[in-house]
Amino acid sequence: MIENAYYSHDTHGDYDLISIGSLDLEEGGTIPDCLLAVATFGELNADKDNAILVTTWYSGTHQIFRDVYIGPEHALDPTQYFIVCVDQIGNGLSVSPHNADGANASISMSAFPKVRIGDDVVAQERLLREHFGIEQLALVVGGSMGAQQTYEWAVRFPDKLLRAAAIAGTAKNTPHDFLFTDTLNEAIQSDPGWNGGEYASNTDVAAGLARHAKIWSVVGYSTEFWKTEAWRPLGFDSMESFQTGFMEAYFGAMDPNDLLAQAWKWQRGDVSRHTDGDLTKALGRITATMFVMPIDEDMFFPVRDCAAEQALVPGSELRVIANVSGHLGLFGLQPEYMAQVDKHLKDLLATQ
Amino acid sequence: MIENAYYSHDTHGDYDLISIGSLDLEEGGTIPDCLLAVATFGELNADKDNAILVTTWYSGTHQIFRDVYIGPEHALDPTQYFIVCVDQIGNGLSVSPHNADGANASISMSAFPKVRIGDDVVAQERLLREHFGIEQLALVVGGSMGAQQTYEWAVRFPDKLLRAAAIAGTAKNTPHDFLFTDTLNEAIQSDPGWNGGEYASNTDVAAGLARHAKIWSVVGYSTEFWKTEAWRPLGFDSMESFQTGFMEAYFGAMDPNDLLAQAWKWQRGDVSRHTDGDLTKALGRITATMFVMPIDEDMFFPVRDCAAEQALVPGSELRVIANVSGHLGLFGLQPEYMAQVDKHLKDLLATQ
Repeated sequence: MIENAYYSHDTHGDYDLISIGSLDLEEGGTIPDCLLAVATFGELNADKDNAILVTTWYSGTHQIFRDVYIGPEHALDPTQYFIVCVDQIGNGLSVSPHNADGANASISMSAFPKVRIGDDVVAQERLLREHFGIEQLALVVGGSMGAQQTYEWAVRFPDKLLRAAAIAGTAKNTPHDFLFTDTLNEAIQSDPGWNGGEYASNTDVAAGLARHAKIWSVVGYSTEFWKTEAWRPLGFDSMESFQTGFMEAYFGAMDPNDLLAQAWKWQRGDVSRHTDGDLTKALGRITATMFVMPIDEDMFFPVRDCAAEQALVPGSELRVIANVSGHLGLFGLQPEYMAQVDKHLKDLLATQ
Repeated sequence: MIENAYYSHDTHGDYDLISIGSLDLEEGGTIPDCLLAVATFGELNADKDNAILVTTWYSGTHQIFRDVYIGPEHALDPTQYFIVCVDQIGNGLSVSPHNADGANASISMSAFPKVRIGDDVVAQERLLREHFGIEQLALVVGGSMGAQQTYEWAVRFPDKLLRAAAIAGTAKNTPHDFLFTDTLNEAIQSDPGWNGGEYASNTDVAAGLARHAKIWSVVGYSTEFWKTEAWRPLGFDSMESFQTGFMEAYFGAMDPNDLLAQAWKWQRGDVSRHTDGDLTKALGRITATMFVMPIDEDMFFPVRDCAAEQALVPGSELRVIANVSGHLGLFGLQPEYMAQVDKHLKDLLATQ
């Protein structure tokens, strides 16, 4: 393990680190002590039927949900629901390459095993059942890689969730997404400071992380985001200051190996692994009421890809979110984004 | 200068290297002996009114036009027109960082001066007038950076061309394009083998050029190109073999400094430099009959950006090309691409 102050209570507020024990992984290998970072909001009711699981995206943590998505003014209302936000494995708060120590010392840094979306979902199900006694969820919701986990939940454990919302993500990762993620990985791995994953500090990989941040700027927003200078209302006075002050600052604080672990997982998300590659059959298993919620300006989870999957989910609805920020609209950069998300999630939660 | 076998008659067929003498540049600096690579097709008629200028894009040369766009079966028909294809400065055939020697020895490699789109157009106009005696063009046509040159011609020399066709490119480069090009540049410049521009061979920068090629794959095509495996009819049996066999092979043969010189120019293409930043005023100067021809799946010269500029060109038409390959449809990868280009260019050439 190495130190990284970003992954701390100072920057991420309250959360618990809960062990679900040893986790055997789909690719082989084991996480000896699978520690999950968990933030909860609201109270579980006596019937234990008001629980919502929130899953996290690449680079994201529970923090963005706490700050942007969850609150009494939102659909994810802690006065009504018990909201459990589980940080994905490898995100730097849950067990991850950079923080693996103690019982996990053997899987530290470059020794971290390959983790799949399915491993996260198995871990989350175990956590909810064993730690909270939750057998069925009112909703699973997540964006991007969180949508991958949402689809995985709905296909793997159809009886364990009543509703599902996949925001800006797919059930089966696309070839374009795979290539895009490759370019992110290569930006990091080409930095001599990365050193095959055995660096002393994330700052050794600062140049690679900055290049990685710039590729995000090109594919993560939209052409119109940049043309309309949509960064200006966010408090920046130039494209350059937004790039350095927001994008480089955001990714530059993170751990390179943690990002790579998440990226490997992202590239291979695919619920059709349950059905010998038959996506129609896999999505046909879903019994949850599902909303598929792409963002109209998303350059790498385009509406057409999400709509094609939605058409395969029985009884589902396509709810397109209009947002100039494209994929990174997930950050909730414009108020109209959350207004739409809240509307759709409220509609979904109102279904019986 | 350094040797690079890619930039030769062996791979680029017949072309002439024509000196237009010394060229003073917009950014200051001078090209002592401005050598332009020029390929011509057809015969100039006695009235000298059948000349068409074809301009080249980033990484491109006259070769792609000769092989794909020009022929008796195409709108660019050498039995009717005298077609002059001028390789842009920095493209490796015309005077460029890697080939600057003799009178240009002082601007070799990292000493190459900054060249703008306007410098190319001034050089081309001088070439056409002094070398061929051409005072007015029947058409200027180009794609991507070639479209930038086309717009520059139409704004700078409105009386010197009757028609203009800008394919998949803009009059004023967009912020998103600027960032995208940055990521291409950074892929090259982050390779230790680049060495500040002073390498002994382009192969010293092979890793950087390969990363650069992969970023092109992500932004240069479309999500649908990859999803529908549109590379398969091109003779490849996997995404990986297309990436290595086509994209890496294409860019890997090129000179890093030459690509960087073109990229710098691309990032700063802007006809509103003629009108104190007033794009409406600049495009209002155009008297040529103009077709603006974006590609519907283009991820970085999207139709909406091209259409916004087209609306500012008096009497122009928007002709959208449908092509799954996105921007790199410019290569003519699908037969339906050239059919549309030919249709539009024939319509344009038929205007009085």
